[in-house]
Amino acid sequence: MVLDRLKQVTQHVTGTAPRPHPFDPLSGSEIESAVALIRQEHGSLHYNAITLWEPRKAEMLTWLADPNHTVRPHRVADVVAIGRGSKVYDGLVDLDEQKIVRWEFTEGVQPLITMEDLQIVEHVVRVDPKVIEQCGIIGIPKEDMHKVYCDPWTIGFDERFGNKVRLQQALMYYRPHVDDNQYTFPLDFTPIFNSDTQEIIHIDVPSIRRPVNQAPANNYHPAAIEAEGGYRKDLKPINITQPEGVSFTVDGRIIRWQNWKVHVGFNYREGIVLNNITYNDKGNERGIFYRLSLAEMVVPYGNPEHPHQRKHAFDLGEYGGGYMTNSLALGCDCKGAIHYMDASFVNRAGSSETIKNAICIHEEDAGILFKHTDFRDDSVVVTRGRKLLISHVFTAANYEYCVYWIFHQDGTVQLEIKLTGILNTYSMNPGEDTHGWGTEVYPGVNAHNHQHLFCMRVDPNIDGPLNTVFQVDAKTGPGEVGSAENKYGNAFYAHKTKYTTAKEAVSDYDGSTSRTWEMANTNKINPYSHKPVSYKLVSREVPALLPKEGGLVWKRAGFARHAVHVTKYEDDQIHPAGRHVPQSSGEPSAGLPEWIEKHGDTSIENTDIVLWHTFGITHFPSPEDYPVMPAEPMTLLLRPRNFFLKNPALDVPPSYALTPSQKATLLGGFKGTDGTDKASVRV
Amino acid sequence: MVLDRLKQVTQHVTGTAPRPHPFDPLSGSEIESAVALIRQEHGSLHYNAITLWEPRKAEMLTWLADPNHTVRPHRVADVVAIGRGSKVYDGLVDLDEQKIVRWEFTEGVQPLITMEDLQIVEHVVRVDPKVIEQCGIIGIPKEDMHKVYCDPWTIGFDERFGNKVRLQQALMYYRPHVDDNQYTFPLDFTPIFNSDTQEIIHIDVPSIRRPVNQAPANNYHPAAIEAEGGYRKDLKPINITQPEGVSFTVDGRIIRWQNWKVHVGFNYREGIVLNNITYNDKGNERGIFYRLSLAEMVVPYGNPEHPHQRKHAFDLGEYGGGYMTNSLALGCDCKGAIHYMDASFVNRAGSSETIKNAICIHEEDAGILFKHTDFRDDSVVVTRGRKLLISHVFTAANYEYCVYWIFHQDGTVQLEIKLTGILNTYSMNPGEDTHGWGTEVYPGVNAHNHQHLFCMRVDPNIDGPLNTVFQVDAKTGPGEVGSAENKYGNAFYAHKTKYTTAKEAVSDYDGSTSRTWEMANTNKINPYSHKPVSYKLVSREVPALLPKEGGLVWKRAGFARHAVHVTKYEDDQIHPAGRHVPQSSGEPSAGLPEWIEKHGDTSIENTDIVLWHTFGITHFPSPEDYPVMPAEPMTLLLRPRNFFLKNPALDVPPSYALTPSQKATLLGGFKGTDGTDKASVRV
Repeated sequence: MVLDRLKQVTQHVTGTAPRPHPFDPLSGSEIESAVALIRQEHGSLHYNAITLWEPRKAEMLTWLADPNHTVRPHRVADVVAIGRGSKVYDGLVDLDEQKIVRWEFTEGVQPLITMEDLQIVEHVVRVDPKVIEQCGIIGIPKEDMHKVYCDPWTIGFDERFGNKVRLQQALMYYRPHVDDNQYTFPLDFTPIFNSDTQEIIHIDVPSIRRPVNQAPANNYHPAAIEAEGGYRKDLKPINITQPEGVSFTVDGRIIRWQNWKVHVGFNYREGIVLNNITYNDKGNERGIFYRLSLAEMVVPYGNPEHPHQRKHAFDLGEYGGGYMTNSLALGCDCKGAIHYMDASFVNRAGSSETIKNAICIHEEDAGILFKHTDFRDDSVVVTRGRKLLISHVFTAANYEYCVYWIFHQDGTVQLEIKLTGILNTYSMNPGEDTHGWGTEVYPGVNAHNHQHLFCMRVDPNIDGPLNTVFQVDAKTGPGEVGSAENKYGNAFYAHKTKYTTAKEAVSDYDGSTSRTWEMANTNKINPYSHKPVSYKLVSREVPALLPKEGGLVWKRAGFARHAVHVTKYEDDQIHPAGRHVPQSSGEPSAGLPEWIEKHGDTSIENTDIVLWHTFGITHFPSPEDYPVMPAEPMTLLLRPRNFFLKNPALDVPPSYALTPSQKATLLGGFKGTDGTDKASVRV
Repeated sequence: MVLDRLKQVTQHVTGTAPRPHPFDPLSGSEIESAVALIRQEHGSLHYNAITLWEPRKAEMLTWLADPNHTVRPHRVADVVAIGRGSKVYDGLVDLDEQKIVRWEFTEGVQPLITMEDLQIVEHVVRVDPKVIEQCGIIGIPKEDMHKVYCDPWTIGFDERFGNKVRLQQALMYYRPHVDDNQYTFPLDFTPIFNSDTQEIIHIDVPSIRRPVNQAPANNYHPAAIEAEGGYRKDLKPINITQPEGVSFTVDGRIIRWQNWKVHVGFNYREGIVLNNITYNDKGNERGIFYRLSLAEMVVPYGNPEHPHQRKHAFDLGEYGGGYMTNSLALGCDCKGAIHYMDASFVNRAGSSETIKNAICIHEEDAGILFKHTDFRDDSVVVTRGRKLLISHVFTAANYEYCVYWIFHQDGTVQLEIKLTGILNTYSMNPGEDTHGWGTEVYPGVNAHNHQHLFCMRVDPNIDGPLNTVFQVDAKTGPGEVGSAENKYGNAFYAHKTKYTTAKEAVSDYDGSTSRTWEMANTNKINPYSHKPVSYKLVSREVPALLPKEGGLVWKRAGFARHAVHVTKYEDDQIHPAGRHVPQSSGEPSAGLPEWIEKHGDTSIENTDIVLWHTFGITHFPSPEDYPVMPAEPMTLLLRPRNFFLKNPALDVPPSYALTPSQKATLLGGFKGTDGTDKASVRV
């Protein structure tokens, strides 16, 4: 079908380019086409986001099933724009029809903070007299204001300011030298910035003042390493080459690799979006996931002293994992043969901008895929695995998040996230007590406790959209030790609990039962095991949300209260903390809690559902995390269970295979029943 | 010191070879030297094991501190031999003194089952009339007895037979063709084999008979794959080469790599043993672990029907992870430049045998080690990581365990285990109910639920042997939402509980608090964080032992009842389920429960301690695990916390580094305070 599509050259949207796949992100020209239409009707605005309004699922499933005889879903732009007085407009522009089909003024919300919104703040704080005054108090003279930096954050929610005015809080730092790591020199006060008027409207000043850190800089740039004795010289190169190129094919944004097929999308907010993931099971293209993404995250910090409670960034909903994505054009972060994809966004002025090499697609060797040796004769099959990684890296001010969607030959999809970058730091005086809310990672540098909680949105399509979720707990069998049914006490089994409503499906992780969750199609039974075909979520890094019930973070980050939520599919339910996250009060909690409150008793059994999984880590910093953190990995698996008839990777060519009969031949004949006929097992 | 040692050529043990390091495994000639002495005094015996009796720690620490002025620990062989009538002898032979220093007849125990013990059983069952009769009943004619196979297992403990006689149970299979995967054709009865008399003494026959499976074979050898359409042809090669060789040095069995130093030992039982692991911290060689190993494991199966309760293999204590180790001479399982080490054992007759290439030591690329981009100007440092893997693969009848001890540049030690091989299977009739105790993974093939529980023994030496263990739980801070101390409810911290006695230290995993355990040296405080230097155990695959309290497995596998035990160091406490595991009744429970019962109130604070960690997975099989399992990985980390002053890998050469000042120069000068001077962030 894709080839057919490619033949349909149209001038409708982009002149002579092939028509985009309905899942494709908006191109630069599509973005600018939307802007032109809006400008015509609504005049001058600041653009916050223009992204693909994804085709309605019902329409899309029909089209995917038969693209040649079905009306093609229209290309629609989902627009957020800001007018004078922080007026927020949400709109939809049908690019096929070339018209605005929705345009609404949305009250009481603040859309995310763009990179351009962020960039301006530092320039304003440097010249603000009140900031200059505060800098003077802690030891920075007026003439050094060019050495003052800030990481502008969304304000979270500050009840003193509400959400009528678009605000940022400026976390302040100092660089003795322009190349110094500023996080060693945090400043103790926090200006509040009004994005509309571009001025500082308030400064939060602590009761105890902390003069700027007098410790030497703590850097990791080449000059600093040279000054400490230089780089180590004992690493010999490891070369990873693919002389014949990659093993995947690229057709537009559809990647085919080792029976997998996946459409790779990208948006300003979630970053990578994977659509219509299927597996070619001996000629039968079977649906597995309709859509996979990281939909939201929150990073609550654990210091209760004001104003640190405001540090709980929703990096996707408040800044955008796509907007913050690194261009991998400047030296790649992967080895081997790489395929890149760019990403296009709108800028404030309404032009399109492109991040070159935003997405990296490459293969890696994956070690032993399977191996078995017969202990009788050392006959053996050993086969090496391969994996496909679709990744991007985004920088959220101090932190880096490296996101890897990994496909395995055995049918497993893995999500791995590596955390690196620099700890968010606050100043402390010599001898000051952290009260356990943080760690002094370097003299004068207090790195506060925090959690990184990610929400993965899984739209399963396990042999079709009618799916059911089961909670699976490893449990001991009934019957006490000595009883007839369990004499030796060794009985255990997988206890499955079917979720029938969204309210019932609100669930936590249980390490003691090795809890997993199965997304199953109960209409299709594995003929061998007589169990429904399914994919199982195996995730072990699932901390509880530590901010307390009823508190600020708990209210705003409803998705993070539990490990798993399941909802009936709704086209517009993409963002589990709501569409516009900055300055949301959490009253009521937007996103998941709201949806479940409204539709919590609707059946989620044998219907089109979405599973939301919150996972992550709790980080108590230590000096070895500083001045730049060694990457800390976390991972989860989506594994086929009762989905295939057998290990689907048996036909991967082995590294080595020797059957018993071959082994016997090598040794001069296999005789079979004679006790003396076997090869010596050990050489 | 090692170089000095190498200069001391001695003829004492091995003629002209350099003297072995006191941690080195016994060489073939040392083994044979011990046998010669024993033979002289005690005549003809069957040898079960001869391994290094590791130097007493006090003596060894003295020697390690100053090898040139200290008496060198003697080479001592630890011997298990079996005389007529299953009489077990435990002995010690001092090879320096050339004399037997201990020789004891040990009553009521059975030492492990060697590969030779296993090999004989199949030959005996094939000609046993009672077995032939049972085969006939389920459809295998007498003339096909050469197609009958068995995996001999230890009997675990069967109260009908006790432990006076050395027994094995024969799990029976059939191969229509010699190259067929026998696990598709399990037989329903279980002969009991007397190792002493080499005869079948009993057969456990189920009340419901199950004729041999009539389903077609389910194979994964090349001919089977060819018959189904052949191997996939779309995998392009990934070449991993190290043209300049490896980055580590090898001095005897001491490996030096990226500031790490480790002695690589190996024994018949634990497999790889890592000793005296130190890190060169800017010229200061700091102790981290005195000894690391996988000390025991148990694989309980969850089917309560007799005699399946006997399936709970202690693969290390009952068979030996070293004895079962694959020779990697036949095609290697790793890529790149490999350094191998062989392993020498005694055989039944008292000769030494060698597994060539038993241990694989190699490096791998480890992806991003750290990265940070400044969002202001895209100045960036990105550094690629490297890891060192010390690994072996062992085959325990049907299963394969791939064990990787991994050293990272950031000071982390990782243990990764991959499970592959073939499920243990039992027969089932068409339409038979598994009762949830197993899964029909293929017609007629019932793969029972099971757990793989490993016990890692950690002998910490965190800046010296005086260490203390703390349990660390992530907890919410005090004060309700709205209170002065926790107004927004966001306070959280690391709650540390010091273990003062072994009884207090018996602890379980708690996923809800992301529980970790810190091995700390409270005598040495990190000058930045003011916290004790430590290594933290981060382990997330920690299922509860599912066999019930008081039952057979619970009694025999005391170590598996809890995630963590801590004991005061004792030289002879190496094996957490006891020295001789087969046919132990668990009354009383040997190993850890016994030690803790005896010395549970002794202080384990600020003293020489050992931490025992049980982790693993619970496996509910599914068809995609068959006929050979895609490798299932599990992992844990030992991470430095407050051990270093900063990230110890900063001096790893970066892939790319560009400072703000360099970036500004590239763009025509950095001006600093002017809002228009910055590089366009997006290309």
